[in-house]
Amino acid sequence: MNDTPAPFTEQDYAARMTRAARDTTEAGLAGLLITPGPDLTWLCGYRPASTTERLTLLVLTPGSEPRLLVPSLERPDAEAAPGANALRISDWRDGQDPYAAATGLLLPNGRYGVSDTTWAVHLLGLQEALPLTTYRPLTVVLPLLRAVKDTHEVARLTAAGAAADAAYEEILATRFTGRRESEVAADLARLLHEQGHTEVFAAVASGRNSANPHHRSGDRTLKKGDMVVLHLGGRKDGYNSHTTRTIHVGDPTEEQRRVHDTVRTAQQSAVEATAPGVTCQEIDRRARELIENAGYGEYATELTGHGIGITAHEPPYLTESEQTYLVPGMCLSIGSGVYLPGRFGVRITDVVTCTEDDRRRLNSTEHGMTIVE
Amino acid sequence: MNDTPAPFTEQDYAARMTRAARDTTEAGLAGLLITPGPDLTWLCGYRPASTTERLTLLVLTPGSEPRLLVPSLERPDAEAAPGANALRISDWRDGQDPYAAATGLLLPNGRYGVSDTTWAVHLLGLQEALPLTTYRPLTVVLPLLRAVKDTHEVARLTAAGAAADAAYEEILATRFTGRRESEVAADLARLLHEQGHTEVFAAVASGRNSANPHHRSGDRTLKKGDMVVLHLGGRKDGYNSHTTRTIHVGDPTEEQRRVHDTVRTAQQSAVEATAPGVTCQEIDRRARELIENAGYGEYATELTGHGIGITAHEPPYLTESEQTYLVPGMCLSIGSGVYLPGRFGVRITDVVTCTEDDRRRLNSTEHGMTIVE
Repeated sequence: MNDTPAPFTEQDYAARMTRAARDTTEAGLAGLLITPGPDLTWLCGYRPASTTERLTLLVLTPGSEPRLLVPSLERPDAEAAPGANALRISDWRDGQDPYAAATGLLLPNGRYGVSDTTWAVHLLGLQEALPLTTYRPLTVVLPLLRAVKDTHEVARLTAAGAAADAAYEEILATRFTGRRESEVAADLARLLHEQGHTEVFAAVASGRNSANPHHRSGDRTLKKGDMVVLHLGGRKDGYNSHTTRTIHVGDPTEEQRRVHDTVRTAQQSAVEATAPGVTCQEIDRRARELIENAGYGEYATELTGHGIGITAHEPPYLTESEQTYLVPGMCLSIGSGVYLPGRFGVRITDVVTCTEDDRRRLNSTEHGMTIVE
Repeated sequence: MNDTPAPFTEQDYAARMTRAARDTTEAGLAGLLITPGPDLTWLCGYRPASTTERLTLLVLTPGSEPRLLVPSLERPDAEAAPGANALRISDWRDGQDPYAAATGLLLPNGRYGVSDTTWAVHLLGLQEALPLTTYRPLTVVLPLLRAVKDTHEVARLTAAGAAADAAYEEILATRFTGRRESEVAADLARLLHEQGHTEVFAAVASGRNSANPHHRSGDRTLKKGDMVVLHLGGRKDGYNSHTTRTIHVGDPTEEQRRVHDTVRTAQQSAVEATAPGVTCQEIDRRARELIENAGYGEYATELTGHGIGITAHEPPYLTESEQTYLVPGMCLSIGSGVYLPGRFGVRITDVVTCTEDDRRRLNSTEHGMTIVE
């Protein structure tokens, strides 16, 4: 069940970098500048021990060999990266100006895409060293760089989703009444680890805490009458899972049932709208329309979803302002929620992959309101 | 021994923000823009659950109340921060343009210091929303913002150093021969945790691995004749420890003794040079001169040190290019190292605080080459 998938190869990384360079030309850019973080890991498999004030920079220029500039001390680590043979590596030493070292790799008046998470100190250093260069955030100019997953990536996301589902099924079999949120969350985290997750997210929001969409598990003791939002996921073999379910301790009220039904119907509608050629905006509208018609529009404060892959949140975003068309291979976390301040909240989320024909859910646990003891 | 220090108060945070705003004027800036990370934590005690594409921005303007702009979903977390009462908090909702929301807090042609770790996507968003504003990295315009520690901060760094020393003493009492680097490192990490560290760094580099300054513990089994670099530290009550010692399994060779003596003498000389009014450059030169005179200059590839506080590495840096004068309250990690490629390496590091008169070491374990079994 927890079979480790085959690692990505040098050819996989070379293909990603070639595709990124090709997309760069289409986007009217001179190239891409990538600093440590998920984009760097995805493009060449290199993940420095930590992200620091020392500049590490991958430069992708269409028609040229990918170049990686690293601090000299970290060169051995960079050379050991799985995609290193597809790169030409150079280094700079402490005491040297890393931005001056980078200028040799850039066009002095080029327009570059730069990874969103690049530190300001590095961007300002490049802007100062080459004042005629211009920069655009990678997710603005190439929002779909990592958005379309290949079959190996979808397989990892599928396995991560199945593992999260298994952990959820196991937690349902435990007792809720009389235990603290933090205790249930600790159990959930352990189950996710047992299911092969190496990084874990487990939040339990009960009673009025469930009305805070970002509540992390606290000291509150669960009791009959509580709505409980379970928010679980993490990373397995480098790819993320993310699912949300809302359950109830003992019998729910009429209103609690109505809100839960509204959210479930809205989320299902958003999932069923997912297909190639549909825009992110349309999916968001589909879900919101149902919630608004039920009279809860002002309490639906969270976005309807976002891409998921090697990061838990990535483009495209399922919001009113996102015109991106879905294409096969995109993987999305799709969720609806209603949060009644000071009272209770409901959220339901699944990861869904867009297929050639329509879509496939990567989470398949019960969506209706499960009653627990 | 592991008494928890009193938490910093609203007044502590208000004082830090007032001081930062005052320094801003002296630096000729319109204000400071701070996104999640150590600067935000230090200034107002707010540490969002994660750093994301959603803009969170602290704006400090001399003579005005500090303003914090947060995503609406994270507002409850921000309001619960220990420095929240010293802030005026506003929010933006998913679907709105956060940079447009930020423009109301900024001068349209202001020159701002921006935290080094601010994501490029946010900086580019601000640059686009207010094209006449200009930005400089915080560590360039206000390098000393967090560099001078107050007595409560020095007390925490002192306690963290003592805890690291205690863990080091305990590891020396264990057996080294026949155990893997990773086993010794796991023991060291456990000891650091037992000594009150909540985040831990423990690296063991033996034999030829010791020649790689960034080696992390691996599978290599320790044996007689090995030089072993122990690199340990982490965070205790929010402040970092960081110490390095080089020990030897069994009897060292003449050359190993000579390199160890060279490094020890160089590091001691750098520590003894530490005093108010001395520049970082002078400390770096003092250490390098001794290493160069001993004929190992080309193998001293790491910098001589850096500030330490709530982050493990922070300004000022002890390098040839750093002209900063030391002042009382600065806390520095000061280390010397010689790395002979493919053979062995030696590094010795202490945290040192600059006092009114001279200096005080926060690590006091043996610097000479300890022989272990």
